[in-house]
Amino acid sequence: MPSYDYDLFVIGGGSGGVRSARLAASLGKKVAIAEEFRFGGTCVIRGCVPKKLYVYASQFSKDFEDAAGFGWSVGEIGFDWTKLVAAKEAEITRLEGLYQKGLTNAGAELIASRAELVGPNTIKLLSDGRTVTAERIVIAVGGHPTPHGDLPGHELCITSNEVFDLPALPKSVLIEGGGYIAVEFANILQGLGVAVTLIYRGREILSRFDQDMRQGLHREMEAKGIRILCGDVITAVARGAGDLLKVETRNNGTLQVEQVLEAIGRVPNTKGLGLEAAGVKVDEKGAIIVDAFSRTSAPGVYALGDVTNRVQLTPVAIHEAMCFIETEYKNNPTSPDHDLIATAVFSQPEIGTVGLTEEEAGQCFEDVEVYRAEFRPMRATLSGRTEKMIMKLLVNAADNKVVGAHVLGHAAGEMAQLLGISLKAGVTKADFDRTMAVHPTAAEELVTMYSPSYRLKNGARV
Amino acid sequence: MPSYDYDLFVIGGGSGGVRSARLAASLGKKVAIAEEFRFGGTCVIRGCVPKKLYVYASQFSKDFEDAAGFGWSVGEIGFDWTKLVAAKEAEITRLEGLYQKGLTNAGAELIASRAELVGPNTIKLLSDGRTVTAERIVIAVGGHPTPHGDLPGHELCITSNEVFDLPALPKSVLIEGGGYIAVEFANILQGLGVAVTLIYRGREILSRFDQDMRQGLHREMEAKGIRILCGDVITAVARGAGDLLKVETRNNGTLQVEQVLEAIGRVPNTKGLGLEAAGVKVDEKGAIIVDAFSRTSAPGVYALGDVTNRVQLTPVAIHEAMCFIETEYKNNPTSPDHDLIATAVFSQPEIGTVGLTEEEAGQCFEDVEVYRAEFRPMRATLSGRTEKMIMKLLVNAADNKVVGAHVLGHAAGEMAQLLGISLKAGVTKADFDRTMAVHPTAAEELVTMYSPSYRLKNGARV
Repeated sequence: MPSYDYDLFVIGGGSGGVRSARLAASLGKKVAIAEEFRFGGTCVIRGCVPKKLYVYASQFSKDFEDAAGFGWSVGEIGFDWTKLVAAKEAEITRLEGLYQKGLTNAGAELIASRAELVGPNTIKLLSDGRTVTAERIVIAVGGHPTPHGDLPGHELCITSNEVFDLPALPKSVLIEGGGYIAVEFANILQGLGVAVTLIYRGREILSRFDQDMRQGLHREMEAKGIRILCGDVITAVARGAGDLLKVETRNNGTLQVEQVLEAIGRVPNTKGLGLEAAGVKVDEKGAIIVDAFSRTSAPGVYALGDVTNRVQLTPVAIHEAMCFIETEYKNNPTSPDHDLIATAVFSQPEIGTVGLTEEEAGQCFEDVEVYRAEFRPMRATLSGRTEKMIMKLLVNAADNKVVGAHVLGHAAGEMAQLLGISLKAGVTKADFDRTMAVHPTAAEELVTMYSPSYRLKNGARV
Repeated sequence: MPSYDYDLFVIGGGSGGVRSARLAASLGKKVAIAEEFRFGGTCVIRGCVPKKLYVYASQFSKDFEDAAGFGWSVGEIGFDWTKLVAAKEAEITRLEGLYQKGLTNAGAELIASRAELVGPNTIKLLSDGRTVTAERIVIAVGGHPTPHGDLPGHELCITSNEVFDLPALPKSVLIEGGGYIAVEFANILQGLGVAVTLIYRGREILSRFDQDMRQGLHREMEAKGIRILCGDVITAVARGAGDLLKVETRNNGTLQVEQVLEAIGRVPNTKGLGLEAAGVKVDEKGAIIVDAFSRTSAPGVYALGDVTNRVQLTPVAIHEAMCFIETEYKNNPTSPDHDLIATAVFSQPEIGTVGLTEEEAGQCFEDVEVYRAEFRPMRATLSGRTEKMIMKLLVNAADNKVVGAHVLGHAAGEMAQLLGISLKAGVTKADFDRTMAVHPTAAEELVTMYSPSYRLKNGARV
């Protein structure tokens, strides 16, 4: 048996990498983890965490408006972007420290360096040129926003990597993209006082979500003043007058904005990683190909998280890491379970969703009951806000199982988490019906929809 | 077969009465419903609905404070109580109208009168002295706050009936009671700027809730500046200097406050209702005694909602009404199901709960796993608020079933509703564990507690 410098070498200090390294080290394995930027990865440094903090920040402007309906008056409102950036920075630095401390306490070695594969079981550390060997290697290097390199003027645009730390808050932003990152930033920036336009090549934002959620959110965003241009793309960006950029679009002429945020997708960080040298195969998008146990085509090399482009979510990367540990170090072969993953879009209002969309349910099942409620949330009755909450359950009539649940509105993310438990456990609509309402809540609508709003027979609404 | 004026006569236009009358009328029955005050009952007029509106109103003061940590500055803040009262009034009047309209549209006759029983199947309307007969009578007259008549000076105190419409917001309030009404108003009034003291005879607020919820909320309330005096009672109230009341307590000397709110319990509205004449028996608390189908001791007379003192909650009254309709008019005998009712306390922070407390679980099961998480919610990291969220799952180790779930923190009410579905469906801890986290949410803690914090063996912590 050959001797290696490490039992496990993890490349990438994000959610999946850190969990793998920490758990393996806590089992007594000799572990190193290399990170070239900051521990915490996309989630902590420029994803989930700062995003949610900015969502909280951006909601205050609406709260100030809403307060009047409840008897409050507020004096002059001011917002200091640099204070928010600094507060965010302090918090993610704190979290970064916790990640590092967790690794150190478990006995893992932290290496501040880019690491590349140079052969089987062999890694080169670019910080000092050292070469080390490991029995097992986990690649968890994540992904990055597509820079849209074929767009003339793309170098004038920013991505979600830069938006968190802009030196000043722009007065106007054009966001290209229709996915959750584009949508979340449209709402954040609008709440902070920026004039926001969203441009998206598709027919409707959030392409893989339920149609009611997509249209409902679109309506709410427009009602707030976000301009949405669907079925259109940016064709060129150039410097314009003063601080402005001049943006050419295919169908909506020329737009003048201070910033253009490209959010058209993310790509795996596999370039220059030495994957060929190590015999690790990637797919046509550059994502590392893995089997059901996160094994790559090279013996002893594993990949997990966004770099594998399975499901690009923090909890999924963590789950894949935990399955890797079970399989490789606990003699308990465990495949990651990617079925029925609840997710949230932290737009304002939020979307929370688990299971099938109405369209998918119609394709999967012969007879589908659709329960749908649209109502004004109680808070809006006094705030005067016109926003509507939408809740939807999709039920397979054959066995009464709830196969999809969708919520648009406040706390939809929290609701999706708990609806996820029910759907994962395979509960029926009868279980929902047997549950007493909690009054007054929004979620009580989900247990008081006694009759279907309509049905789908062989996918067609009847 | 005798002939009656009505198929169904409902006394009381609250949640249970309105639902009974509306459903029976929509089935083609000849229905009348008498209400002496306002349609909507406690829930709409002086309970759940205005309470929640005031909760929303009272949260803004914290939002204004929290905003600074996110980069916002707000000018001078003002609050106008009379504006809130007027806005609340407009909203409950709107809801009252909807209740009336629903009844009218279904074909029920609305009678604005107190109605009393005068004999079998016979009701007297006090507005015009008319006597009418009905084949079935539903008594759904609800309850009212205990006026605490044996307290010297009780006539100087208010109850939850009056607090919503005080002509002016007092500067200081003493609330007696430790139940959810006392606790909710303590938080509402404190949020609106009132100096609040809560006095309660028990050892800890919210006696039937899980100990962690009770202590956790107590701590948060004190941290906000609410003074809490447990193990004490008011012994006398008298007029003091100026606008103040002079309040004697058993253990904490004399207190001077502008208002005293008595919230020590609620009693059924059964006095003077003619129950004896109709042969309807009540228990020692004055609650109407009913069987499993809401039948009273008098043939043809049914009772539901708070007047029966089973579970005093709006959704329970509605559920009992729906069961009554199934049983009596749809040939489908259905008993109300009072098991595993999820509830919320709309304190700030909220409590959401379903199933057994830790203490109860320890009594019911030999081996209980306790999963407990206490953490700072993400929003608090930037707001600087010290508040902690607590989440707790109680699992019967013998069959892995989750038998209790408790949440203290933002959106706990919404969470309780959805946890209620899972517990009602009998899901296991393994179902929670198999559920992917939704990140970043608070609820994800509920699916990522992999190891018990501790266990109970025969009720004792080990």
